[in-house]
Amino acid sequence: MRKAKVYIALLHYPMYNKRMDIITTSITNLDLHDISRAARTYDVDAFFLVHPSPSQHELIRDIISYWQEGFGGEYNPDRKDAFSIIRTATTLEELREYLESMNGDKVFTVATDARLYSNTISYSKLKNMVFNEEKSFLLLFGTGWGIQKEIMEACDYILQPIEADRRYNHLSVRSAVSIILDRLLGEYWFNL
Amino acid sequence: MRKAKVYIALLHYPMYNKRMDIITTSITNLDLHDISRAARTYDVDAFFLVHPSPSQHELIRDIISYWQEGFGGEYNPDRKDAFSIIRTATTLEELREYLESMNGDKVFTVATDARLYSNTISYSKLKNMVFNEEKSFLLLFGTGWGIQKEIMEACDYILQPIEADRRYNHLSVRSAVSIILDRLLGEYWFNL
Repeated sequence: MRKAKVYIALLHYPMYNKRMDIITTSITNLDLHDISRAARTYDVDAFFLVHPSPSQHELIRDIISYWQEGFGGEYNPDRKDAFSIIRTATTLEELREYLESMNGDKVFTVATDARLYSNTISYSKLKNMVFNEEKSFLLLFGTGWGIQKEIMEACDYILQPIEADRRYNHLSVRSAVSIILDRLLGEYWFNL
Repeated sequence: MRKAKVYIALLHYPMYNKRMDIITTSITNLDLHDISRAARTYDVDAFFLVHPSPSQHELIRDIISYWQEGFGGEYNPDRKDAFSIIRTATTLEELREYLESMNGDKVFTVATDARLYSNTISYSKLKNMVFNEEKSFLLLFGTGWGIQKEIMEACDYILQPIEADRRYNHLSVRSAVSIILDRLLGEYWFNL
């Protein structure tokens, strides 16, 4: 069994667009569905949607309440269960402070990106820490064309890009989250 | 480098619904996007959307042409690239015959499902075959509440469910495809 607490956050600001301007992206309905189902499967402690806008927080509440309290929850109880781990936050700073005060200890931030950074950590090394050390980790995922460089560089760890040696490397964030959770929190299928 | 040819197919009939009736599911726009991007990243040889209805084939052509020929292709050339590996087929039988006649050799079908079947193959064993044997494999993914039992049982191999020992196991098909491609075709990250 895993010893560490693991949280994930999907950031919507400050993101790059394709021209590398800093933008705020919108909440995407299917991110809530696919990522909460993956997070729930891999026993993530909570899935935070981080967005600065109150109206987008309202949209999140509307989607969640349909699947928690409305017809959706009755029709599909598994989705209700998955949605129970969704939380919201306004900024990454606010989220870190909240998690550290709740845990009474440092929360290590781990960034993920398709771009190469120096000082990256391997999946096996981080998996090892997650399974064997009583720490708390917050995995950050970006939207748009990726997380602002300054946020990346301020993280405690940067994970290696998935399949860095491929010619094409443009996974959706939903695919990237699924693969990274499987590598870090999943069963040791490669030993079976 | 991988020696085997690997194709994937997303089936829309015969699927189960939540009451275990046999149904035909609809084409989902985001399946095309997320699965083609994952398939392209992991160098899958082709991604087949299998659907019996001509009107759904027309819908697929409309979506693809927007991203190939329309504004989408200009705005996002990576998506154009991903969509270039999408193909369509009417039935699984038709697809198997087409692939076998094209390859001049048997195509091994591999089913994937969240349900447990006897006679499953492990990810490491299949990964080993895929990397070292000059065979052709067709991985089948289902929609709705899963692929009809008779289709599953007629396959050459059935992959173990992802994370079979978890209490909650309801990944989206987009997450399941991403994780399975990463396990079978991905880098040996666990040795790094």
